[in-house]
Amino acid sequence: MSDLSRVKALLFDVFGSVVDWRGSLIRDLTDYGRKIGVAADWALLVDEWRANYQPSMEQVRAGKRPWTKLDDLHRETLDMLIARLKIEGLDEAARRHVNLGWHRLDPWPDAVAGLTRLKRKYVIGTLSNGNLGLLAAMAKRAGLPWDVILSAELVRAYKPQPQSYLGAAELLSMAPDEVMLCAAHNGDLAAARKCGLRTAFWPRPTEYGPRQTPRDLAADSDWDVVAADMVDLAARLGC
Amino acid sequence: MSDLSRVKALLFDVFGSVVDWRGSLIRDLTDYGRKIGVAADWALLVDEWRANYQPSMEQVRAGKRPWTKLDDLHRETLDMLIARLKIEGLDEAARRHVNLGWHRLDPWPDAVAGLTRLKRKYVIGTLSNGNLGLLAAMAKRAGLPWDVILSAELVRAYKPQPQSYLGAAELLSMAPDEVMLCAAHNGDLAAARKCGLRTAFWPRPTEYGPRQTPRDLAADSDWDVVAADMVDLAARLGC
Repeated sequence: MSDLSRVKALLFDVFGSVVDWRGSLIRDLTDYGRKIGVAADWALLVDEWRANYQPSMEQVRAGKRPWTKLDDLHRETLDMLIARLKIEGLDEAARRHVNLGWHRLDPWPDAVAGLTRLKRKYVIGTLSNGNLGLLAAMAKRAGLPWDVILSAELVRAYKPQPQSYLGAAELLSMAPDEVMLCAAHNGDLAAARKCGLRTAFWPRPTEYGPRQTPRDLAADSDWDVVAADMVDLAARLGC
Repeated sequence: MSDLSRVKALLFDVFGSVVDWRGSLIRDLTDYGRKIGVAADWALLVDEWRANYQPSMEQVRAGKRPWTKLDDLHRETLDMLIARLKIEGLDEAARRHVNLGWHRLDPWPDAVAGLTRLKRKYVIGTLSNGNLGLLAAMAKRAGLPWDVILSAELVRAYKPQPQSYLGAAELLSMAPDEVMLCAAHNGDLAAARKCGLRTAFWPRPTEYGPRQTPRDLAADSDWDVVAADMVDLAARLGC
């Protein structure tokens, strides 16, 4: 393990790394569909929704549209998919509720325990493409004990754009190497490392369910810390 | 008390309202001066430092200089005052330490207890002219249990500029009347109310020590809640 004595803040990727977006949304929407009497292949909706995540942000990154919050990108994709998958019976209030499913994601079983330990020694925060309101609502419901909620929204640059990482360090008044990005995604870590941040990885092998590809099943570089999960991350950082 | 059923988030002014900047800094700097053998009228330094708070932000508000973090405004004022008050023996490291005194402020005795109760029912956060790094460091040290740390820095508009209040609500994805500004300063509340936020007041009659003027000793308008302190605020909001 590298010398990490300068690290003061741990910033976490959230979707997939800290919370199980796929399992949570499928459970949540299946229950909701039953309650309001709407039949749909909710797992397919969720998978297609997430499949459009990067393309929707890419429009913003490429400057083809002005800054747009993730909640709004999610809503546009949802409306498009409801039409394409021919899901009937979702009025405006129902669509709004479904879209806020991204605020109701459950943490992976080790997440709260790991964060609680890490918080004793480090400033812990988010660094997510989720908008601040989404992340705050999620944290409140899930009991994620963040010291600070940082979002791509605050610097108007979606990860993996360099300004998302550099702007987060700047908001904390810290040098890049005083901040460690913690994520289950090698690509996120590679972009953070290029900006001078420290890096920690653990795998989430069931993040994508049956669609999981070999991607991100293991560390593909010599990240500063490679852990089994977030509790193990705490142990490896001496918390 | 008005109908406050729409309120979801309580955003707190920090300096003076939640933490005792004057008492904390005088204690901290007196101890530090003794430790490093530097003699000064620390109470005078602190009072003059704060007296330059509004004028220094006014340069930014008026567009006479680009956005500047409060930590940096504080440092400029400190250097000016060290020269004017002829304080000898503070090298660069000592000046940096003194300037970070604003990160080491102690809460008023009722603050943590009040926030802990309010947090059960509301999203609680800061809305301060302090920069995010300052507020995060202060919260960590003082045990202030914020759900979210919002700062004028995030919208680059110092209070009482309207965008500071409106931008905070927008970051939370809330309407202005879903947010209540909570402060011991009537002027801050008046500006927030003009933007449509709800308002709560309690007095901090010793904030300025012997320099306290009649200002802010009591509510000077019909704020939505007027409390004795932050524990009383929790009681009045049913927490």
